[in-house]
Amino acid sequence: MPPSTPLQASKVDVSKKAWEQSPPLHNRWHPDIPPVATIREGQLFRVETIDWTGGQIKDDDSSDDIKHVDLNQVHYLSGPFRIEDADAKAAMPGDILVVEIVELGPLPGDEWGFTGIFDRDNGGGFLTDHFPAAAKAIWNFDGMFAHSRHIPGVRFPGLIHPGLIGTAPSHELLAIWNEREKKLVEGGEKSTTLCGCLHTRPLACLPEPKGALLGGVPKGSPQWEKMASEAARTVPGRENGGNCDIKNLSRGCKVYFPVFVEGANLSMGDMHFSQGDGEVSFCGAIEMSGFLVLKTEIIRNGMEMYMTPMGPTKLHVNPIFEIGPCEPRFSEWLVFEGISVDESGKQHFLDASVAYKRAVLNAIDYLSKFGYSKEQVYLLLSCAPAEGRISGIVDVPNAVATLAIPIRIFDQDVRPKKLMPGVSLRVQKYSDCCKSTYDGTAAKTENPALSS
Amino acid sequence: MPPSTPLQASKVDVSKKAWEQSPPLHNRWHPDIPPVATIREGQLFRVETIDWTGGQIKDDDSSDDIKHVDLNQVHYLSGPFRIEDADAKAAMPGDILVVEIVELGPLPGDEWGFTGIFDRDNGGGFLTDHFPAAAKAIWNFDGMFAHSRHIPGVRFPGLIHPGLIGTAPSHELLAIWNEREKKLVEGGEKSTTLCGCLHTRPLACLPEPKGALLGGVPKGSPQWEKMASEAARTVPGRENGGNCDIKNLSRGCKVYFPVFVEGANLSMGDMHFSQGDGEVSFCGAIEMSGFLVLKTEIIRNGMEMYMTPMGPTKLHVNPIFEIGPCEPRFSEWLVFEGISVDESGKQHFLDASVAYKRAVLNAIDYLSKFGYSKEQVYLLLSCAPAEGRISGIVDVPNAVATLAIPIRIFDQDVRPKKLMPGVSLRVQKYSDCCKSTYDGTAAKTENPALSS
Amino acid sequence: MPPSTPLQASKVDVSKKAWEQSPPLHNRWHPDIPPVATIREGQLFRVETIDWTGGQIKDDDSSDDIKHVDLNQVHYLSGPFRIEDADAKAAMPGDILVVEIVELGPLPGDEWGFTGIFDRDNGGGFLTDHFPAAAKAIWNFDGMFAHSRHIPGVRFPGLIHPGLIGTAPSHELLAIWNEREKKLVEGGEKSTTLCGCLHTRPLACLPEPKGALLGGVPKGSPQWEKMASEAARTVPGRENGGNCDIKNLSRGCKVYFPVFVEGANLSMGDMHFSQGDGEVSFCGAIEMSGFLVLKTEIIRNGMEMYMTPMGPTKLHVNPIFEIGPCEPRFSEWLVFEGISVDESGKQHFLDASVAYKRAVLNAIDYLSKFGYSKEQVYLLLSCAPAEGRISGIVDVPNAVATLAIPIRIFDQDVRPKKLMPGVSLRVQKYSDCCKSTYDGTAAKTENPALSS
Amino acid sequence: MPPSTPLQASKVDVSKKAWEQSPPLHNRWHPDIPPVATIREGQLFRVETIDWTGGQIKDDDSSDDIKHVDLNQVHYLSGPFRIEDADAKAAMPGDILVVEIVELGPLPGDEWGFTGIFDRDNGGGFLTDHFPAAAKAIWNFDGMFAHSRHIPGVRFPGLIHPGLIGTAPSHELLAIWNEREKKLVEGGEKSTTLCGCLHTRPLACLPEPKGALLGGVPKGSPQWEKMASEAARTVPGRENGGNCDIKNLSRGCKVYFPVFVEGANLSMGDMHFSQGDGEVSFCGAIEMSGFLVLKTEIIRNGMEMYMTPMGPTKLHVNPIFEIGPCEPRFSEWLVFEGISVDESGKQHFLDASVAYKRAVLNAIDYLSKFGYSKEQVYLLLSCAPAEGRISGIVDVPNAVATLAIPIRIFDQDVRPKKLMPGVSLRVQKYSDCCKSTYDGTAAKTENPALSS
Repeated sequence: MPPSTPLQASKVDVSKKAWEQSPPLHNRWHPDIPPVATIREGQLFRVETIDWTGGQIKDDDSSDDIKHVDLNQVHYLSGPFRIEDADAKAAMPGDILVVEIVELGPLPGDEWGFTGIFDRDNGGGFLTDHFPAAAKAIWNFDGMFAHSRHIPGVRFPGLIHPGLIGTAPSHELLAIWNEREKKLVEGGEKSTTLCGCLHTRPLACLPEPKGALLGGVPKGSPQWEKMASEAARTVPGRENGGNCDIKNLSRGCKVYFPVFVEGANLSMGDMHFSQGDGEVSFCGAIEMSGFLVLKTEIIRNGMEMYMTPMGPTKLHVNPIFEIGPCEPRFSEWLVFEGISVDESGKQHFLDASVAYKRAVLNAIDYLSKFGYSKEQVYLLLSCAPAEGRISGIVDVPNAVATLAIPIRIFDQDVRPKKLMPGVSLRVQKYSDCCKSTYDGTAAKTENPALSS
Repeated sequence: MPPSTPLQASKVDVSKKAWEQSPPLHNRWHPDIPPVATIREGQLFRVETIDWTGGQIKDDDSSDDIKHVDLNQVHYLSGPFRIEDADAKAAMPGDILVVEIVELGPLPGDEWGFTGIFDRDNGGGFLTDHFPAAAKAIWNFDGMFAHSRHIPGVRFPGLIHPGLIGTAPSHELLAIWNEREKKLVEGGEKSTTLCGCLHTRPLACLPEPKGALLGGVPKGSPQWEKMASEAARTVPGRENGGNCDIKNLSRGCKVYFPVFVEGANLSMGDMHFSQGDGEVSFCGAIEMSGFLVLKTEIIRNGMEMYMTPMGPTKLHVNPIFEIGPCEPRFSEWLVFEGISVDESGKQHFLDASVAYKRAVLNAIDYLSKFGYSKEQVYLLLSCAPAEGRISGIVDVPNAVATLAIPIRIFDQDVRPKKLMPGVSLRVQKYSDCCKSTYDGTAAKTENPALSS
Repeated sequence: MPPSTPLQASKVDVSKKAWEQSPPLHNRWHPDIPPVATIREGQLFRVETIDWTGGQIKDDDSSDDIKHVDLNQVHYLSGPFRIEDADAKAAMPGDILVVEIVELGPLPGDEWGFTGIFDRDNGGGFLTDHFPAAAKAIWNFDGMFAHSRHIPGVRFPGLIHPGLIGTAPSHELLAIWNEREKKLVEGGEKSTTLCGCLHTRPLACLPEPKGALLGGVPKGSPQWEKMASEAARTVPGRENGGNCDIKNLSRGCKVYFPVFVEGANLSMGDMHFSQGDGEVSFCGAIEMSGFLVLKTEIIRNGMEMYMTPMGPTKLHVNPIFEIGPCEPRFSEWLVFEGISVDESGKQHFLDASVAYKRAVLNAIDYLSKFGYSKEQVYLLLSCAPAEGRISGIVDVPNAVATLAIPIRIFDQDVRPKKLMPGVSLRVQKYSDCCKSTYDGTAAKTENPALSS
Repeated sequence: MPPSTPLQASKVDVSKKAWEQSPPLHNRWHPDIPPVATIREGQLFRVETIDWTGGQIKDDDSSDDIKHVDLNQVHYLSGPFRIEDADAKAAMPGDILVVEIVELGPLPGDEWGFTGIFDRDNGGGFLTDHFPAAAKAIWNFDGMFAHSRHIPGVRFPGLIHPGLIGTAPSHELLAIWNEREKKLVEGGEKSTTLCGCLHTRPLACLPEPKGALLGGVPKGSPQWEKMASEAARTVPGRENGGNCDIKNLSRGCKVYFPVFVEGANLSMGDMHFSQGDGEVSFCGAIEMSGFLVLKTEIIRNGMEMYMTPMGPTKLHVNPIFEIGPCEPRFSEWLVFEGISVDESGKQHFLDASVAYKRAVLNAIDYLSKFGYSKEQVYLLLSCAPAEGRISGIVDVPNAVATLAIPIRIFDQDVRPKKLMPGVSLRVQKYSDCCKSTYDGTAAKTENPALSS
């Protein structure tokens, strides 16, 4: 085998349950989850992952699985991988671990994905006040291109990326996370930045033993009990990277990760075939199982050289990314704008989240004029290569956010235009995506994400 | 003259004061500011503008002009232009006015611009808690490229755009603006979204006769007094477009504006040679005088066809933009990430503004390792073609924002890399930008923006 | 004036004849044409040019001017400009002169251009055997975009460039040119590479006093007589650059020119608003008057450092170009292929010219199915941003050439597609371009290009 | 399996000989080679191919395999595939077969490739008069990126494509090919267009039973004997597509093929990881084994609708290609120019092949100043994503061709620049590629390509 053939570092079997995989998966961040493999710096290695929900969502035409999804389990990650240099010396705290994504894609034989709107009482999303009911779209892949029987008339090239990739936190960093998120929940400042619209969403997902999977640590052992009670949930992105959902982190990109534990303990999962900036419907990318081929490099003492902690300790840093020349490119975009005045007409002060919400709502309303239901557009904007920008953040009192959509993903011309007298816009409706009703039953499922 | 030669619709003389220009300028939004010219649909027309401060900032090496700038005057706009169709029928409320930017640039003989950090007590900016003192960089233009004696080692192509362009509000819309912004000021919720850091910035700039310029309406007349007391300040972007600071609004773009008054009454100014997303230092673009060549089209009843009001009235809409194939392109980017944990380590809930602030701070710290002062980088990120993205807005509790910087604007390789043993990063410092001290004297100037 | 304001180095008046301009123009290459201005290295300077024919072609709807154009006069150039370094030392033979194009465009008030097919007996073109009759299209410019009443349904951004720019040849180099081109004409190997199709085109345009304009050298003087009899015609590109017609030589590009005479003596003209690779109809770009803003740098002894002569002397070199990030970009292309089998079915050996001819003919036939006349498409492919590639040049006996056309320049979808049963391709014809008949009268004009 | 999982239509085993593969391969074009599989329109299918030489070239550091390669065997193709519509009706002569490339890459476990300069007496290449001796470089792939131990300091993203893909010729078309190529060989006009430099290359490769592989037709059978004596060699691109070596024919592209036989009988092979326009060293791409995932569509009677025959019969057509948004993009290029004056100083008439040769030679000389041997650069320009353009083809007597090289593929800045006094260009030489001597021994191998 030539040196370019990657080492198979981790496999999955999508016909098995998440907790039956070998090597074992994990769905929490903890420094003591044991590595499943040791990888040399410079070695190409291949990692397989299951989808973030662990197979809960099916390739069918009902959205009940989305409505009743168990969010306690997420996200299932592959790894951790211990990284060593050519002399078998491990990456050490204070180093930077450079991870290059050399290839990635869906698993052969499993070339499909899903995008969902979560029920308001079970996960919700950025626009859950407007879209309380669950919905789903299934996507199929023609190589680089995605298309959906549930959202006809669009087709776009994927910008495949891991939604979640990161190094393990140290005990110290883990304690910082738990403390600050607990304070937020206890403080109870519910969604003030988002005009009250997210009132049923949890403020944060605190440690929760129920549903925890901790790799090779035997469930029920004293070690497991201790770890499960303190291991961080995987939902938010944090200092170690994690669930950053950066849609451009694709072929040819590099990530510069801070290292917090010996070996770095790199984990990843939540593969996306494509995502729009913001991943607005929460289950918003085209979620899939998949594989990555990676290559690493260690920059010794890189954190001191390149990263400046911002906060009380040296650990308050963030990864750095490098984007390469391999992205699909679009040359024409339709751009929707939002300002930080909410849907009730209330003025907010330089609030980019409110502004972005308005931009997304404007885009949904606009595109629904071309034959789509609003749920379809909400799903589409979550997963298509739309760019969400903070355009202005200084002009008091209005933040200005924009959402740019590549025009060519549609098979019709969606630009505003003069119509001939007597002609109206397309009236023909497309067939719709799969929808559920919003009736509160979702809340009745056992969902620890909400019980906290 | 061929039909492609634009009509000269408005001229300026940069050697004169803002209030001495003919046709007269204006620096407030009001439906009754009389048009300076009538333009036919389809007609190419050329507009000249002075810089947004009206010549207060000089091409020199002191930042005192920035420190003591009178923000009461801003922004000086050219227009309004009344738009009619081929049958001399004016654009009417409910129509969409399509404005295509066919050409734009600096004024011949005035090919320079400035970027400033405002003093904390006189304007401030996105990072005013970190950078309280005024600073300035002067840029010169080599055609498409900008370079600065105050920020050596960078050069980049401009993406020239009007920071401010919009249609006139109706009386009804103006009243809505004044009411909602007044409520915000009275509510006094000072900067809660931005961790208290902006406590000296005004929450909003309410109507202020002092410094008002209302085009052809004679100052001191009863009409002027009434209008000046209610005319909206130009600082924020609003339903009519306005100060959107959308950095990609350049050659070949179209804007679809809602029309609120007969004739549409299009105004513009605040030309930028280049800007980064967010325009973070507030005086953050490369500010300049300039010209635009425009072409318009009227879509009758377009607001009903294409825009969905979001709020209590039909007026709560936003413009739509269309970006074309003429932008400068970069293929490699260095990307900095921020999450909604502030510099003190405090956790915020899905706050994209906080996340973006962290991303910008991370980028400033990083780039300052390559020979620059932090003020230089803050200025640079405000005006270079950096992209600010809302990457994740659903993963509780952390919003993830990113700031992407094109690598090729630097004349050195700013990527993180392994260094030879014993080698350290560049120690040679560049000469610095112009800086002032922060001593409170700025606040002593008469600045109505702060007295409200 | 700021240092970015260019020095006005040369002006033209398009209402005057070419030989009445001040400073004087020239239409031949000769080392002894005196410079019209001296320019310092690093100094921005602005040059105006008339169109290459000197105003012979009019903005009207007849192609008679094209049919009877006097090619003896072409191309009218501005300059030469003598280049000196900061110490007033001239660029010297052996140096490299770096010329950066910082800005360029049509002359204000003259924003139009033309594309022509020359009559077979007066100029001809790449496909003159297929298109013997003269034709013309007039283009108007909306800023960056060109459109034509003679070729409806297309609109594209210009990639403005000087078709012709170069340094003056030395006496030695001039002698080499004259000798090798004379040999070609005397050898009489008429068009063997292009299957006999160009039999009425001159093999080369040898020195010709008639019509010569030599800048400041008084016509009729002994010096003029001598120079005119040996000065090189401007039609072909040569070692000094010259009429290279490189369509991407636009804003932000640099050219590295060899210097052959003291001062470099840089001249330029033949501005194009846009051109397709190959400029196939010969008068094939969108030809216009225009201006350039330039900046120079001298690399002392650069020829020895960077250029390797290929031929009997040190003078057999070619310029080097550098393309920047400012080009308009297209993401989707329709590509036509040709192989080196000619239209009669005859096989040629690795002949890229024949292959390219086939590719162009294939594209013309194809696009003419969408409502255009073949002359319209021939004109369009000459001037639109089409890319002509040598795809394969080694697979005996067939060279493979391709012509790629950006799909988005058309307002209809020109891709091949399945049609519904009973539906045929667009039958509606566009109005045509201006055409003349081919009747041999063009040959009766006094055209020294053919009399040689 | 979801509908996006491709049907495995053809497999190879790179540990076996080319003639031992199952299903069988073929290395000639003939209408009677039986299809190996039938594929439905719309069905995704996966094809594996061996490298074009059938494994003759090894991943080692000697170029002897290149020197003595048996060119009689080439190119080994997979297929043919018979294409039917949803009603099981075959594609018919006169239809267009649309082939979309949805995915492609190296074979897992075989991620390497080679680029070679053929010996002057055994294959040669575009510059064989300058580079008579065999040479080789091995490339390894890091996902999308290629790098070579034989050409240090460069790394670039691949634009993977099949060098050879086409439909089967009909008997009538085959006869046309054989006749016109035989005429060329008999006419003996040796390389007149390329200044005599290719005098040892065959003018064309006529049918040759030796080495022929005809898929499922048993070798030695009467049918085999007849077919082998008339089957077309695969070296040149022709009406059916074939060896077009179009470097951009990658992910997301479509090809519109003419159909000449029932079922279309699509074949492909000669996978390239990357290639420069022209593939100048002949074995010039990064040659590899690989796979493709394809999807087809049939446009009934498409040839009449969209293709215009050019020649004595309806068969003289060429495929059309469509390039999509997924290419790697570069924003800065260094461009070398050549004119149709050859290395001896002789003037040729509008000969794009000579001009391109000069451009390539100029680029080789230039880049060899930066630490490379000329062979290394020749190999590099053959396989890196360099663009070869026909810039001007009408300015008698000089054709102008250009070769554009993306600057970012080098890890040093290869632009011309001013050096400090006393500083010279990089003197450190890179380690070289593998080279052989040119001593005539290559000619002694049995090479039917030369014996014809």
